[in-house]
Amino acid sequence: MPTTTALLFDVFGTLVDWRGSLVETATGVGGSCGVTADWAGVVDDWRRAYQPAMDRAPTGARWRDLDALQRETLTAVLRVHDVDLPEPAREQLVQGWRRLRPWPDSRPGLDRLRERHVTATLSNAHLALLVDLFRYADLRVDALLSAELAGAYKPDPAVYRRGAALLGRELEQCALVAAHPEDLVAAAALGLRPVYLRRPLEWGPGTDCAPPDLPGLVVVDDLSRLAALLD
Amino acid sequence: MPTTTALLFDVFGTLVDWRGSLVETATGVGGSCGVTADWAGVVDDWRRAYQPAMDRAPTGARWRDLDALQRETLTAVLRVHDVDLPEPAREQLVQGWRRLRPWPDSRPGLDRLRERHVTATLSNAHLALLVDLFRYADLRVDALLSAELAGAYKPDPAVYRRGAALLGRELEQCALVAAHPEDLVAAAALGLRPVYLRRPLEWGPGTDCAPPDLPGLVVVDDLSRLAALLD
Repeated sequence: MPTTTALLFDVFGTLVDWRGSLVETATGVGGSCGVTADWAGVVDDWRRAYQPAMDRAPTGARWRDLDALQRETLTAVLRVHDVDLPEPAREQLVQGWRRLRPWPDSRPGLDRLRERHVTATLSNAHLALLVDLFRYADLRVDALLSAELAGAYKPDPAVYRRGAALLGRELEQCALVAAHPEDLVAAAALGLRPVYLRRPLEWGPGTDCAPPDLPGLVVVDDLSRLAALLD
Repeated sequence: MPTTTALLFDVFGTLVDWRGSLVETATGVGGSCGVTADWAGVVDDWRRAYQPAMDRAPTGARWRDLDALQRETLTAVLRVHDVDLPEPAREQLVQGWRRLRPWPDSRPGLDRLRERHVTATLSNAHLALLVDLFRYADLRVDALLSAELAGAYKPDPAVYRRGAALLGRELEQCALVAAHPEDLVAAAALGLRPVYLRRPLEWGPGTDCAPPDLPGLVVVDDLSRLAALLD
């Protein structure tokens, strides 16, 4: 990949461990309210409700941020799990998406990749959440880019197009690094280079999924390996 | 100022020394073409043509980036100065806006301010230019925000509103740090806290201007002083 290539990164699951972090947060929040539940099950179902919520959400000027979507889906998921959590505790969980641990290779890998490449996020999370999350996780990229800036959600082509345009690059001059096949399929269809970053523990042990079948796909186990490949 | 306050920074003149850097670039570029000129005069006139060019430029979907505006104004300024510079050399000057030296306090000051405050740019430069400039100058903020994201140019209120909204904050929860009265007047009119950062050498020696007359104005000589005031 030429050094002119800009590297765009998916965030949840790809750079940070939402599941481990949120299960810990939920267990703590539940404990302090005296509420017990299958918190891993709640968190997994909450995360599963995320893409359908975006698919239903309006785009353009009425684009809705992740906090708003997560509040609604959390209420529904808790109802299904028959968990009664007071509103302030539910809000602590919603805010928990700002306090997610990075995977061990994320910080050193991003720093190393930034030496020779322009790096940016391309996340469905809104910019304000990304700012807080990157401060919390102590991660650094050249630019925080969000689907918010396109008024759409991945995998809508508008998001990838807007990301490349804001970096002053053609789609072919960008790579998308993600742990999720559907994100990579959408990006590759537009001409971005797909990089599949394996995160076998994203959904817990024994949940690894197969890389998508895409021509030219780069598959790596961590970001330092990607940096070594590119050097 | 509470730690919830987000600090927005103007860039050209406020964080980086456009004049000293561009005069040096122009002298070098001119020299390599065998062209002599009053380069300081050319650079000053070029910079003076910047705000009028933005005032004439379309907004919204037809928003034009700084590279495009600077190319046009440079051609006009060189004509006035009767300087004949080949196109590749002119383009080197346009690209020179990506290679501007930070003022000595900018890097340590931004780093220190970021410890307790969310920091972001709010510049009329487009995002791709800001990415390159911040990499070149080795400056770090939490988010690069540009007037491009509002499809307008400062001092249009839409730019300050969009900046605050993208950071998830009310206008009153933001401060604007700038070396330019007109920027601060526009920001303060919307409720942002105005911080006047003196840059007496922005236009060369002996060109210092007076702070604007604004209620609650904070006046500082460098960013470390601002950090000390906020701590």
